[in-house]
Amino acid sequence: MGEFERISRFLRHFEKARALVGPGDDCAVVRPRANRDLCLTTDALVEGVHFFRPAFSFEDIGHKALAANLSDLAAMGARPSFCLCALQLPASVTAVQLDGLARGMARLARAAGLPLVGGNFSRAAELSVTLTLGGEVRRAGALTRAGGRPGDLLFVSGTLGDARLGLEQLLADPTAEGAAVRRQKRPAPRLGLGLLARRFATAAIDLSDGLSQDLGHLCTASGVGAVVTLGRLPLSRAVKQAKGSAAALFAAEGGEDYELLLAVPPRRASAFVQACGADGQKVAGIGELASGRAIVFEGPDGRPVERPGGFDHFGPSGRRIDRPSGGR
Amino acid sequence: MGEFERISRFLRHFEKARALVGPGDDCAVVRPRANRDLCLTTDALVEGVHFFRPAFSFEDIGHKALAANLSDLAAMGARPSFCLCALQLPASVTAVQLDGLARGMARLARAAGLPLVGGNFSRAAELSVTLTLGGEVRRAGALTRAGGRPGDLLFVSGTLGDARLGLEQLLADPTAEGAAVRRQKRPAPRLGLGLLARRFATAAIDLSDGLSQDLGHLCTASGVGAVVTLGRLPLSRAVKQAKGSAAALFAAEGGEDYELLLAVPPRRASAFVQACGADGQKVAGIGELASGRAIVFEGPDGRPVERPGGFDHFGPSGRRIDRPSGGR
Repeated sequence: MGEFERISRFLRHFEKARALVGPGDDCAVVRPRANRDLCLTTDALVEGVHFFRPAFSFEDIGHKALAANLSDLAAMGARPSFCLCALQLPASVTAVQLDGLARGMARLARAAGLPLVGGNFSRAAELSVTLTLGGEVRRAGALTRAGGRPGDLLFVSGTLGDARLGLEQLLADPTAEGAAVRRQKRPAPRLGLGLLARRFATAAIDLSDGLSQDLGHLCTASGVGAVVTLGRLPLSRAVKQAKGSAAALFAAEGGEDYELLLAVPPRRASAFVQACGADGQKVAGIGELASGRAIVFEGPDGRPVERPGGFDHFGPSGRRIDRPSGGR
Repeated sequence: MGEFERISRFLRHFEKARALVGPGDDCAVVRPRANRDLCLTTDALVEGVHFFRPAFSFEDIGHKALAANLSDLAAMGARPSFCLCALQLPASVTAVQLDGLARGMARLARAAGLPLVGGNFSRAAELSVTLTLGGEVRRAGALTRAGGRPGDLLFVSGTLGDARLGLEQLLADPTAEGAAVRRQKRPAPRLGLGLLARRFATAAIDLSDGLSQDLGHLCTASGVGAVVTLGRLPLSRAVKQAKGSAAALFAAEGGEDYELLLAVPPRRASAFVQACGADGQKVAGIGELASGRAIVFEGPDGRPVERPGGFDHFGPSGRRIDRPSGGR
């Protein structure tokens, strides 16, 4: 199967792009709507780093690659508008596997109303999927990491630590199944919550590297510190059962949950919580932003614990940095 | 050196992005200008496929990755407006090497007036650079592959076959130097010609896979055939010397020249050639589009030769398809 046959086979899974020029020319051409700003993100899913076979099916890979990028749009409060897909494919990838990848990606794209407008196929030794997404916000309406102020309340969506628990389970047994494994393989980007949050939040970030590290990014960008109560972190039954008394610290370190962390001024907090309830969005208050630069995690006795670690692609372990932490 | 230190070290080489939100948030945010369409392209440069070390320096890799993408904008007649850079880096890549990659990319970005607004770093076994570029055209002003009509004259810029000759020289001797090697390592995207061509051309494509194959794409998109006279292909002294009587066929197959192929109606051809001359753009007439679907290459005796081959990432050789052709 040649390059162009692969491309057309891949594209068949997607709805026809709503673009002036879609896949197949030197560029895709889209027409931005008036009075909108354009949010742009690019993110890669690399074999052996973000997924490993055969634990991840090709559908999982396609889904997860797109979910990670959609999550970045969600964190800006943006409405998805286009996607470009750059695939690096080992020669061993079969047509059936490529179909699976396309199916996993196309299903989520359809749900998000996201057209695939262009892309690139390249041979490579290692499988990877690099997507670039654009999304629209009202002029000057993007929700950045930088607007948080001391006193803003911190909320997170969903539950934390599940994706990392799922990874642990898959590393121990690639055939493992269950709720945590599903969170690791098929994360759900919080697009609806991002759109809603624009009306309330001063700052937002998606949790890809773990709460501790991503909170650090938000605080650095906003020029503030934070206090988080470990006991308030929303935990699933799976994480509680697997990690017992260490569950909250585990959740604060775990990456790839793709939940949103939001800073909301106290005066808007109850309206925000109400709007979330009405929209079916689950959020939990976990602490607040503070003046200064310190990021403090408070343990069960109300005393600070050593700050949990996070994910660094080039960290000493080459995988995850697990800083020694008081709770374990 | 951790992920975030790598990123900030990389960004230092680039001019501060002219974007509402630049690198460092979940998304970059840009404001499209009114009454413009947005051209989007993504293209990857992969180790072992598009370059190999140590023949290619990190500066070469950075330059070439950006040049290949800028060439796609050139082919649409677009003015570059933003770039996102997704790097896959083996852990062995040093800070000095990363600086080189950034320098090669930043120099060309500066020359093209292109701000780097965002990106992504990921660990990987194999080095690759995936860029996504946006460029602006007037509304409905993009130059596609699809507008060519029978009778339109075909022009190409520069000279053909040099990049492939340079590749051959590097494969024989990774320390080879000279004009052809420079064309292979540091292609020059024809942005100025693309902007000029919008006023004259009905269709355009950049020559990344070789004239024969890329002409095929243009003809398929336009629903036409073509006749090309091999003897009219513009050849450098290097290609003529190295390939002798087979030089034109070699040039018709050679990929990665990143020249433009343009279809211009006869009534606008002389004004086009004049405008090119005034702007310092070298173009050569090589044939014309024809009704039907046949793509014919005419040899020195005016008789058709077997159509030259081209590049396919997933072709039988895994590298280049060299179809047997009459001239060799």
